[in-house]
This record gives sequence, structure tokens and C-alpha cells, in this order.
Amino acid sequence: MTTIDINCDMGESFGAYKIGEDEKIIEYITSANIACGFHAGDPLVMDKTVKLARDHGVGVGAHPGFPDLIGYGRRYLETFPGEVKQDVLYQVGALSAFCRANGVTLRHIKPHGALYNLAARDERVAGEVIEAVLAYDPTLILVVLSGSRLAEMAETAGLQVAREVFPDRAYLEDGRLAPRSLPGAVVHDPAQVRRRMVQLLTQGTMTSIEGREVPLRADTLCIHGDTPGAWKLARAVREALKEAGGTALPLAQGLFA
Amino acid sequence: MTTIDINCDMGESFGAYKIGEDEKIIEYITSANIACGFHAGDPLVMDKTVKLARDHGVGVGAHPGFPDLIGYGRRYLETFPGEVKQDVLYQVGALSAFCRANGVTLRHIKPHGALYNLAARDERVAGEVIEAVLAYDPTLILVVLSGSRLAEMAETAGLQVAREVFPDRAYLEDGRLAPRSLPGAVVHDPAQVRRRMVQLLTQGTMTSIEGREVPLRADTLCIHGDTPGAWKLARAVREALKEAGGTALPLAQGLFA
Amino acid sequence: MTTIDINCDMGESFGAYKIGEDEKIIEYITSANIACGFHAGDPLVMDKTVKLARDHGVGVGAHPGFPDLIGYGRRYLETFPGEVKQDVLYQVGALSAFCRANGVTLRHIKPHGALYNLAARDERVAGEVIEAVLAYDPTLILVVLSGSRLAEMAETAGLQVAREVFPDRAYLEDGRLAPRSLPGAVVHDPAQVRRRMVQLLTQGTMTSIEGREVPLRADTLCIHGDTPGAWKLARAVREALKEAGGTALPLAQGLFA
Amino acid sequence: MTTIDINCDMGESFGAYKIGEDEKIIEYITSANIACGFHAGDPLVMDKTVKLARDHGVGVGAHPGFPDLIGYGRRYLETFPGEVKQDVLYQVGALSAFCRANGVTLRHIKPHGALYNLAARDERVAGEVIEAVLAYDPTLILVVLSGSRLAEMAETAGLQVAREVFPDRAYLEDGRLAPRSLPGAVVHDPAQVRRRMVQLLTQGTMTSIEGREVPLRADTLCIHGDTPGAWKLARAVREALKEAGGTALPLAQGLFA
Repeated sequence: MTTIDINCDMGESFGAYKIGEDEKIIEYITSANIACGFHAGDPLVMDKTVKLARDHGVGVGAHPGFPDLIGYGRRYLETFPGEVKQDVLYQVGALSAFCRANGVTLRHIKPHGALYNLAARDERVAGEVIEAVLAYDPTLILVVLSGSRLAEMAETAGLQVAREVFPDRAYLEDGRLAPRSLPGAVVHDPAQVRRRMVQLLTQGTMTSIEGREVPLRADTLCIHGDTPGAWKLARAVREALKEAGGTALPLAQGLFA
Repeated sequence: MTTIDINCDMGESFGAYKIGEDEKIIEYITSANIACGFHAGDPLVMDKTVKLARDHGVGVGAHPGFPDLIGYGRRYLETFPGEVKQDVLYQVGALSAFCRANGVTLRHIKPHGALYNLAARDERVAGEVIEAVLAYDPTLILVVLSGSRLAEMAETAGLQVAREVFPDRAYLEDGRLAPRSLPGAVVHDPAQVRRRMVQLLTQGTMTSIEGREVPLRADTLCIHGDTPGAWKLARAVREALKEAGGTALPLAQGLFA
Repeated sequence: MTTIDINCDMGESFGAYKIGEDEKIIEYITSANIACGFHAGDPLVMDKTVKLARDHGVGVGAHPGFPDLIGYGRRYLETFPGEVKQDVLYQVGALSAFCRANGVTLRHIKPHGALYNLAARDERVAGEVIEAVLAYDPTLILVVLSGSRLAEMAETAGLQVAREVFPDRAYLEDGRLAPRSLPGAVVHDPAQVRRRMVQLLTQGTMTSIEGREVPLRADTLCIHGDTPGAWKLARAVREALKEAGGTALPLAQGLFA
Repeated sequence: MTTIDINCDMGESFGAYKIGEDEKIIEYITSANIACGFHAGDPLVMDKTVKLARDHGVGVGAHPGFPDLIGYGRRYLETFPGEVKQDVLYQVGALSAFCRANGVTLRHIKPHGALYNLAARDERVAGEVIEAVLAYDPTLILVVLSGSRLAEMAETAGLQVAREVFPDRAYLEDGRLAPRSLPGAVVHDPAQVRRRMVQLLTQGTMTSIEGREVPLRADTLCIHGDTPGAWKLARAVREALKEAGGTALPLAQGLFA
């Protein structure tokens, strides 16, 4: 494993409300998942964020979420049949208008928050996300939780799939994310994040919360942009990558060339 | 004048709320302006309406409005500099995703309600609408109020412009729409609508509310879909067109071939 | 059983969007559950509906729902701890302002749609609804599904509780509502509705979908205002009440005087 | 002039989005204008902010705005006749529910942003704001721009009116606020703010931007909570008050006892 992508959610401000340190984090990442106005973001923010990514050579992806601004897209929402597909299409289309207006190619799609988690394990929701990508542009890369049912289904459907690993999250023996409620589920120390990433990049494994080495496929590493000091974690990941002799490249270039 | 387009706003339902008789009116028109979720419409409605237009051979356009669902996009809203451009881009992009998913080509853009009226006369807003079309796709047709400042500006900017006339509205001597507050400003009788349209199509004039014949350029005729019995007006317009020996064709085919 | 209340959801229009035949149904009911702007309704509609109820001597209640206009409050939404309580407080307060401005006393609270169903069986949500009523005004009547866990909990908490029965819905042997997916779960024939209500009002029982007579406590009967022809069901219920020698009275007067 | 109120907008966070340093500023003020969910704020934030004010002995008022979260209530919005009245009623009612639940008395109403500015000079909008207060509770204090048309109209209507002065804003000779576009319109230096306030509190005048002493009636001083370091201005105002030998008291106690 010599190249990998580093992605981060971006453009999650809304009107007078600011979230995230996009200008700082953009220095350390290679792909930006840009909010599309349903769980965060607005048209002015989307345009500005696409320009920011473009000017830093960072790949642009759509980051669709549930229509739940007050819950920041982190709450499960019951959906009508077909609604997830159409909501994803709507948001991807909206973001792609800003790509087009700014001379940028849309590269990937990564669902947000509760939609990401639900799509990872619920076959109906996963199926609708896949349908949306197939209908809009089957060459777009779908970013999915490594080891999830969605990862399998998307691959079977012929999509280009990027498996995502979370540098600041602990994993269980079976490769699933350790729930946040478990002690040690979130890794706060940049030095520890760095060590874990060196192991992942050089050996393809993570040490599970139970203490076992677990093989984990990683095409892209996720930085949580809305945690304070996120850019320090991003820097630690870049340092790990350097130590491992690897290179960070945006999704389209790094994975499927 | 042998061919003309007949357009109507469509897809203005929202969730459980229904507005308009899209299934009936679609039989009589050649272009559909589809709401994009800001003043009306939602992703499920947008998808359904694009399919409806496609299945009837009706041209599809985006119908962006102010973000004001409660006011149905009919109220003036102060906007930040650049906001109109980005709001139009967002909505056009969103609708074009449903076009793409359904194998339909997006043909035109027509702003809605207060945004339409404001763009017709306010140079800052007009300029931002034009910028949005240029940035997204300069080959898209912009539907504008015949005789408006926007019509001039869009033509100067090199856009393809379709001048719109309202069959059920009276005009003033100077070619502007008679304000709704004037008696006789709205024509309710389908027979009278038909007579007026025959005159427009054969002689290129409308009789103004003051009684003078006024030359008026018409590339497309607008049916207001949310007035009850709108399909009867639409039928009267089709009959007038037949009587005048003309043909109704969607914007791209009829005007600029 | 000589008196009973007949309630109906009202004021569920929004901006230019109309739902329900409030003016017709108001003739047949004694309590109006008025939407509060989260799942339906807006301030102008709320004011108008409070006046409509007042002018017909119909009791006014708040009808809070999930903040989900696009889903009409019918979809389950994950909530943060305390959010249901504060959302109910917010909506009840908003409606009570229109009561105050129009010289009307707020009498009851009935949660809407998914919130009603969830509160009926989920103890956390039920507890928050009860807390909201206790905090706002412990003399308000809470309308609950007859036989539900919420009914028990609210009574234990010392609230005034009105048990609700649905004239157009079939029941199971254990007193629960038959799911809509079962054949016969919804009764469409007004004559049948009338027969069922006469039985309920004279004998205190309903014949279950399995054919057994089930005792069912009914303080109020619910008419679904958004089904077409709802006023015919409302009329059938009034006729049944007359046949049973009973009287329809608003919640506060009929039940707890 | 020995007592005066110091007010600040509060509770303007929304979901995951934070604005303002409420916990810091609350130490220096005597009245809190709490956002009601239309331009900012949400039910959880409203409840928390009412508790914060209560625990600091700070008077609570409703801070209704235009329904424009994305514009933070700072943009002019065309309104339907009666809409301002009903929007104000809705928001005041919603906030009063949290007052009631927390054992707090609602004392005042202060419109926000564009609604405040429009009500200050537009007689139709001013009239609707006054109607809302009269209909809800005529004993509530209405906070208005000192010297505005609204101030006159509200007094004529028999309302209790609190004239507001902005410590960090320059005034014109005729007593109106100097537009923000003029150099010197906003005073950033806390020491200068303090000097100006000492003059206002001891002599009842402000030195206008043209250099003349202008008499200005001040019942309450406004701190802009969303400017960074707002608490330093608030502290400067408290120091001026101490220097002038005055006392800060919440609206109801200080002005109309």
C-alpha cells in the first residue's frame, strides 16, 4: 500500500453559522466531502468550498445527508420508498452545478452521518444509494465504511468503491467500528493516531479494542472536521503516511489509476 | 410566426400537499418549468414530473425560485450579493440530476414568481441570473418576460432568450403587463383568450387595455398551472394555434433550430 | 355512556397548500386538534383555525408533531434526549398564543402522527410528552390511544387523560389497533361506521377483526380530516350518537366536569 | 437618570451551530432577548437560555424575527397582510411556554434584525407588532428604537415602551442611528463606549457624528451579542453606569415600577 486518500467533511457552515476549520484542514487532505444543503451547507458555502478545494488541488465529492438541519444529519429518519435515491440525486446534482461553474470534476459521493450509518447496514437504503449513483454517473466513486454490507453491494453492482477507515476510531475484532459508548472507542492523542496509521499503512491491520490484529482494507482515511483541533489529527495522519513511505492522492488518482 | 412554445409551471406539489393538475395540463403544453424545491416541489415530485414530461414529449426546464416555501416564492426577499446566482445554480443542478437519471435533456430555465418579476427589472438580480446560466451551460434557453430589461441584458450576454407572453393577462400600451389591480388585467374567458392568441399569432400584436394594437414578440406562451381550470385555457391556446395555422413545439425545437 | 367528544385534526394547510375540509367538518365535531407549524400549519392558518373552532363552539387543542413538513409528521424521527419535551412545549405555547389572542381557552393536547404512535408505546417519548404537559399546564387534557402504555403512564402521573377510539379503524382482540396492512383494518362504509359506533356507545365494546366483542374505553372519537369525504364519516358518527341517545360535548365539558 | 436596563440578544444557536457567548455576557446584562426559532434558536436552546437568564436574575423577553434562518433574520422579507402579527404571536407564545415551564415571567418583546428595522419606520409593520402585543398581553414591555415612529405609535396605543440606545453606534443630529456605511458609525473601543455612556447617563445626551450634543431618551442599552468580544463592551457599559452613580435593573423593575 503506497498511496491513499485522506478525506474530510467540508462546507458545513450555514448562513451566519460557522462550523469547521476548512481553511486549515484543506492543507492536509486530498478529498473534500462537501455538504449539499440538507444537513448542512448552503449555496454560497457550497460555491466557496468547491473553489477552496479546487485551489488546493483537493478532489471534490458530494456529501449528501438527511434533510435535518437541526439534527446536523446525525439522526435516523424514516424514509418513504425511493426517497433516499431521490434525495441523493437532488444533492449530488446541486453540488455538481458548483463543480461545473468552477471548472471542477465531481469525483466521489460519501453519504453523511445517519445516512452513512444506515446505508452501511440497511439493504433497502444501501440499494437506493447505489441506484442514485448508477443513475447519475456510474463512474463516480462511492466512499463506504470498510467491511460494510454497502461495500459488498456497491461492488457487486459494478460501482467503483473506496473503503474508508477512521484514524481516530477503535475497531472491534470483526472489523466493525467500536461503538462510541465503549471506553477507548475514540482516540484523541495525535501520537497514538500516528502509530495506528503507520501500522495500517505498512501492515494493513489495526489493533482491535480487544487487542487483536485485524486486517482492514483502507482506500481512504477520514478526518472528522467538526472536532476541535481536527487539523492536528490530519497532520498526524500525513506524518504517518510519510513515515510509511506512502503518498496521499485524491480518490480518482490514487485508487483506480 | 408558424411555431411557438406553450409552457406551464409544474411539479409544485410538496410532500402530502398537492397543487396543480399536472396530468391534465401536460396534454396541452410543449414545455414544463419544473419547481426545484425552494418555493415548491421536492425530490420525489421532481423525479415524477420529469418522467411525466418525458413521457409526453414535453421539453423540461428548471424553475428556480426564492427559498420561501411558505410564500410559494411569490414574495420579494432581500438577497446577499451573489446569492441569486448560487441559488439558481443549486436549483438548476438539482433538477438536472433528475433529467440525467431519466434520460432527459434540460432545455431551459425560467425563474419563478418574485424572482421572475425582480429579475425582469432589477439589473443586479438580472445579472446574477445570467451569470448562473453562463456558468452552468450557456446553451440553455432563458425564458424571460417579453419586453423586459432582463430580455435585453440576456441577449447582450449572448444567451438564447425566449420571450414569454401571458395569454390570460392584459398588456399596457408600452408592452408591459397590466398590473393585476387594474380591472380587466386578467382574462378569464377561454373564448376571449383564444381570440387574443389568434391575433398575436397571425398579426404579432395584442390589443392593449387602453384599446391600442401593441406589437409583442412571443416565443413562448405561459399557462398558469395553479389557477383552477387552467387546462381549459391551455386548450383554448392550442385551438388558437390551430386556427392560426401554427404548430406548438418545445423551446429547443421550435425557436432556435 | 351518555356524552362523548368527537375530535378531528385541523389547520393542516400551509402557505398556498391546502389540506382538509375544515369548514365542512367543523359542523360535526366538538374538539379540534390544531396543527402547530412543525408537521403542518402556519401562523396565519393557526389563527384562522382557532377562530373557526371558537365560532362553532368547538374545543381547541394543540396538535404537536415532529418537525417534518415534507413527511407530514408521519415518519419516525430519532430525537435527542429532552427534545420531544421541548418540541411539545414550543408548539403548545405557539398555539396558546392564538387562543389568548382570540379569547379561547386551550383545553387539550393530542400528539400527531408518528409522535402519537411513538408516544403510545415508547416510554421515553411518553415520559417527555407527560413532562411537557405537567410543565406547561397540568390541567390540560392529554388525548391518548385507548389501551396504550401512554394512557397508563399519564394517568399515573396525575394527568387528565382522554382515551381515543377510531371509528373507521378495526381493533384486535387485545384492544390494539389492527395494522393498516391487514384486510379490513380500515372501515370505509359510513353505514358500518355508524353501526360500530352505536355498539361502542351503548355497550362499550367493539367487534374485533377476529370477531370477538372487545371492551374499549372511549372518551373521544377521532375523525381523520385528511381522508376525502371525512365529513361523511363525521356525520355517521353524529347519527350513531343520536341513535344511542348520547350527546357530543367538547373534552373539558363532557368528560371531567 | 439613576436606573437603566442593559439588554442583549441571546439563545441564537441552532442545533449543532453555536453563536454568541451567552454564558459570559449574561454576567453583565439585566435583560435577555431570546430568539424564538424563526431567525435563530431552537426549542432545546430556548429552554436552556431561559434557565440561564433565570439563574442570573436576568429579565426574559421574546425576540421574534422573520422566518429566515439562512439570513439570520437580517434580510427584508415581503409579508402578507397580518403575517407579521401572527408570526410575532407564534414566537412570543412559543417562548412563553419555556418561561412557564421554568417558573419565569415574560417581561418584554423586542423584534429582531430586519423586523426591528422595518417596524421602526413602516407603519403597517409597526401596527401589526403593536396589535400582537395588545392581543397577547398588553402589560408586556415593547423595546423600540429610541426616536422611531414605532416608539410614538406604541405609546399612543397605550403600550409600555422601552426606548433603546446602542452604546457602540454613532447617532445623527436628528437622533437617528448613523448608517453603518458612514465612517465612525460603529464604535469599537470599549473606553470610548464607556465615555459616551457616562455622558448619556449623566446628561441625557450623545455627541452626534457631526459633533453636536443630541438629547436621547434611553430606557435600555443594547449589547450586540454576536460581535466577538461583546462582553468587553458590556463590561464597559457596566463601568460607565457605576461611574455615573446609576444602577442596572431589568426592564420591569427599573422602568415602570
